[in-house]
Amino acid sequence: MGSLGEGLRDRRRRETRREIHVVALRLAREHGFHKVTVEMISAEVGISPRTFFNYFPSKESAVVEQPPAELSPDLVARFIEGGPGRPRDVLTDLTRLLIEQLAQDPPERSEVHDVFELAHSAPTVFAALMARFDASRLTLAATVAQRMDPDTDEQVPDLIASVAMTAVRSGMERWSQDTADDRSDSPVLYVQRAVTVLEDLLAPGTHDFT
Amino acid sequence: MGSLGEGLRDRRRRETRREIHVVALRLAREHGFHKVTVEMISAEVGISPRTFFNYFPSKESAVVEQPPAELSPDLVARFIEGGPGRPRDVLTDLTRLLIEQLAQDPPERSEVHDVFELAHSAPTVFAALMARFDASRLTLAATVAQRMDPDTDEQVPDLIASVAMTAVRSGMERWSQDTADDRSDSPVLYVQRAVTVLEDLLAPGTHDFT
Repeated sequence: MGSLGEGLRDRRRRETRREIHVVALRLAREHGFHKVTVEMISAEVGISPRTFFNYFPSKESAVVEQPPAELSPDLVARFIEGGPGRPRDVLTDLTRLLIEQLAQDPPERSEVHDVFELAHSAPTVFAALMARFDASRLTLAATVAQRMDPDTDEQVPDLIASVAMTAVRSGMERWSQDTADDRSDSPVLYVQRAVTVLEDLLAPGTHDFT
Repeated sequence: MGSLGEGLRDRRRRETRREIHVVALRLAREHGFHKVTVEMISAEVGISPRTFFNYFPSKESAVVEQPPAELSPDLVARFIEGGPGRPRDVLTDLTRLLIEQLAQDPPERSEVHDVFELAHSAPTVFAALMARFDASRLTLAATVAQRMDPDTDEQVPDLIASVAMTAVRSGMERWSQDTADDRSDSPVLYVQRAVTVLEDLLAPGTHDFT
């Protein structure tokens, strides 16, 4: 199968994955998370439970699917082309990559809100959400390692990815709660704000936030 | 009941909790995590499954119990007495608190190693471990908020706690893998190293690690 066919198959997979997530979240909202089963979700999507498990290991993971679920290959390629640099610059480029991804493919605020709310009400959903963020961290750390000098202390890519994911998590959560602010239908400003706070937090001698 | 009685009860609770964790981890090592049940763990500890669930919501959470499980009230009191300060100084004090806690009550390297290994082999254990770190983050964020000026942007305590927990998680994981280095039976140096990398990561114009 050529690359065109691959592209189509990938797109269909992504659409199915997205639909499972949307249905799982809606059913959890309507019936309460504990009453929802993989069978209910599968029936509503029109797939078998077996197919469901090709996409997600559990109903928890279907519910917490969170952007940036997948990074655009173009953005990743551009990031890696940036080449080895000071860790600080790599971190700046990585947060820029994540923010561009969020801008290209913005999540729905109500959806993110519901996911965080479910996570706070059901410990297994909370655990799945944290695992999801952590899986993103590991993927990002591998991407960062690809770009950096092979001699770099291997802890550095992990910490760069952790700080970037902290900014995304914190910014997304804040955005999802800030229902009073209807001006912004994108989490981008919130994630940028978290990046600024983090930079000022660790930079010596800058202004404080008190 | 007076404070002395409370102290004793608290200590017994802590000992039971610790024993459940140690047994759960040993059984998982011996039989494989999937074959271990709450009933098996409870029988070995000599408690009822009902009592088990007073301590942990699942076998996963019993396995991943990780230090710093509880912070010493003295260390927390000293941290809060530090009073409002620049976020950067609060972060420094918080990492110092966590490092002192680890030094006072050092975990066993083989145990931490086994927990991370189990987490990488069983997704539900991984999720529980991440949830555990995140619960620590929330507790720390609340402690930081107590100390800071009430006008402080509420994102700041959360981000301070996130960065501190990132250092602990990364340092502990590195320490647990570094079996070649028998000189250090404490994760303290590893966590300190992660703190240094994080500081240099965000500080402008410092040396790099390539």
